Amino acid sequence: MCAQYCISFADVEKAHINIRDFIHLTPMLTSSILNQLTGRNLFFKCEQFQKTGSFKIRGALNAIRNLIPATSEEKPKAVVTHSSGNHGQALAYAAKLEGIPAYIVVPQTAPNCKKLAIQAYGASIVYSEQSDESRENVTKRIMEETEGIMVHASQEPAVIAGQGTVAMEVLDQALRPSVKVYAAEPLNADDCYQSKLKGELTPNPYPPETIADGVKSSIGLNTWPIIRDLVDDVFTVTENEIKYATQLVWERMKLLIEPTAGVGVAAVLSQHFQTVSSEVKNICIVLSGGNVDITSLTWVKQAERPAPYQSLSV
Amino acid sequence: MCAQYCISFADVEKAHINIRDFIHLTPMLTSSILNQLTGRNLFFKCEQFQKTGSFKIRGALNAIRNLIPATSEEKPKAVVTHSSGNHGQALAYAAKLEGIPAYIVVPQTAPNCKKLAIQAYGASIVYSEQSDESRENVTKRIMEETEGIMVHASQEPAVIAGQGTVAMEVLDQALRPSVKVYAAEPLNADDCYQSKLKGELTPNPYPPETIADGVKSSIGLNTWPIIRDLVDDVFTVTENEIKYATQLVWERMKLLIEPTAGVGVAAVLSQHFQTVSSEVKNICIVLSGGNVDITSLTWVKQAERPAPYQSLSV
Repeated sequence: MCAQYCISFADVEKAHINIRDFIHLTPMLTSSILNQLTGRNLFFKCEQFQKTGSFKIRGALNAIRNLIPATSEEKPKAVVTHSSGNHGQALAYAAKLEGIPAYIVVPQTAPNCKKLAIQAYGASIVYSEQSDESRENVTKRIMEETEGIMVHASQEPAVIAGQGTVAMEVLDQALRPSVKVYAAEPLNADDCYQSKLKGELTPNPYPPETIADGVKSSIGLNTWPIIRDLVDDVFTVTENEIKYATQLVWERMKLLIEPTAGVGVAAVLSQHFQTVSSEVKNICIVLSGGNVDITSLTWVKQAERPAPYQSLSV
Repeated sequence: MCAQYCISFADVEKAHINIRDFIHLTPMLTSSILNQLTGRNLFFKCEQFQKTGSFKIRGALNAIRNLIPATSEEKPKAVVTHSSGNHGQALAYAAKLEGIPAYIVVPQTAPNCKKLAIQAYGASIVYSEQSDESRENVTKRIMEETEGIMVHASQEPAVIAGQGTVAMEVLDQALRPSVKVYAAEPLNADDCYQSKLKGELTPNPYPPETIADGVKSSIGLNTWPIIRDLVDDVFTVTENEIKYATQLVWERMKLLIEPTAGVGVAAVLSQHFQTVSSEVKNICIVLSGGNVDITSLTWVKQAERPAPYQSLSV
């Protein structure tokens, strides 16, 4: 990786040193039933067991620790972010660890359990409308009022470096470094796919409707070059495929993942993925989080078995 | 343990040798949030990750392997059992491993996912009414028709010895052998508690109504002496306590347990358990299974926080 990206591999290595004593080394699990279904060897990196229930603590904690200078009197007055939930929880937890007040701007439609968890970590919740514009405006106002520093969920370089530490652990735990990188996203929130197709950053034109609430935000200026150059392919999956994959992991692996974490599983199970060379045998899927609002599982009955698996008995 | 019980410790040791190469050594997990809630150190033995999704494979496999003599021509023609689900799945899987046909008598009210799994393992399902009498009658008829051997879910000594192997692993993995043994059961199916109270086997007077479908069957002649002499105390928990505990494990530990597995957690969280000496610090809870019917989670919204935890933020 060279200077054309907002972070380097060295930043990821530094981030790992920064955070590794404060996070879980999450286990890598396998499932013979899912190997059988896909004809590949799948390795599930279980970030739903991570502190705060998702991988987002990695980026948030790295950012917070980068903000704290050696002399403690210069500690920031507050940190601020907007987040559909998991980054909000993560920043709340990380800020509390360092004794910094945190203000989290949350759309009112975010899952209840995520809002409650943010509050349980001692952060203040500020509500916005669902539009990008509204949350940008509310965030700016809060930053001014609190003299707080913004820690963006996806564009902040220290956050990006922190999230990258997942890959370092995966390589340590199971796989070789000569890996391909596939991205997965809902068909209903396919800004990554559209951007790759057009060769330029193409955000979602309106707030997307998807059960995968963690990937409703569009990719941005800092992440687009990384995706453009370093992601080999993007797989999009339907809402039904996400629901089926999520339920499959619940029922067969007994792991409580959130639907956003099911997106990658759905991609590997998809018809389209069968076009990937059968030489791609060992595949690691990051189960990104487990913060599912259990009282809102009204969708559970709706998942139909996607086409390639109609005839199978699982 | 002496000859007054239907099995000895040596039987458990033999069972472990019999089955250990065919089952998972399930992990023991901890949760800082649940330690905090209870003021004790809890160790969760995760049998929801066990083959067939519950600890029941231990007993079923030990029984099946005891039935197979050294010369294969004497293999039994079939095995038969009645089961509210997990033992049925386990016996189906174990019988398939050894190439023996299995017939599972199941009440029509059993969770759908359990029935489907029994069929997926290649066993035949035979339906009965919910009453003990009906399932005894249906079972007898099937045994005659198939010349099958009965493998009872709780009274068969080889099954009891197999289930005992959980304790051997627990002692290996975490705790000292000088342990107390507490039983937990729903208040609505408290035959164990009533039996201990009266000093004699006291089955449930009618089919119990409880979300913990795995413990609807009463204890029997073979298990009663073991419970009478070797279980230190029995804790009963309400339906709401079971639901709360189950949801807590889902939301906080991201482990998909079935409500029956939540009974032990509910016991440790209960007000009554606070009367147990605070010297009892390290506690292992067996999470017995994960075969929850995800499409029938209509109860999920109903759980209210039990009294001792009203003021806590989790």
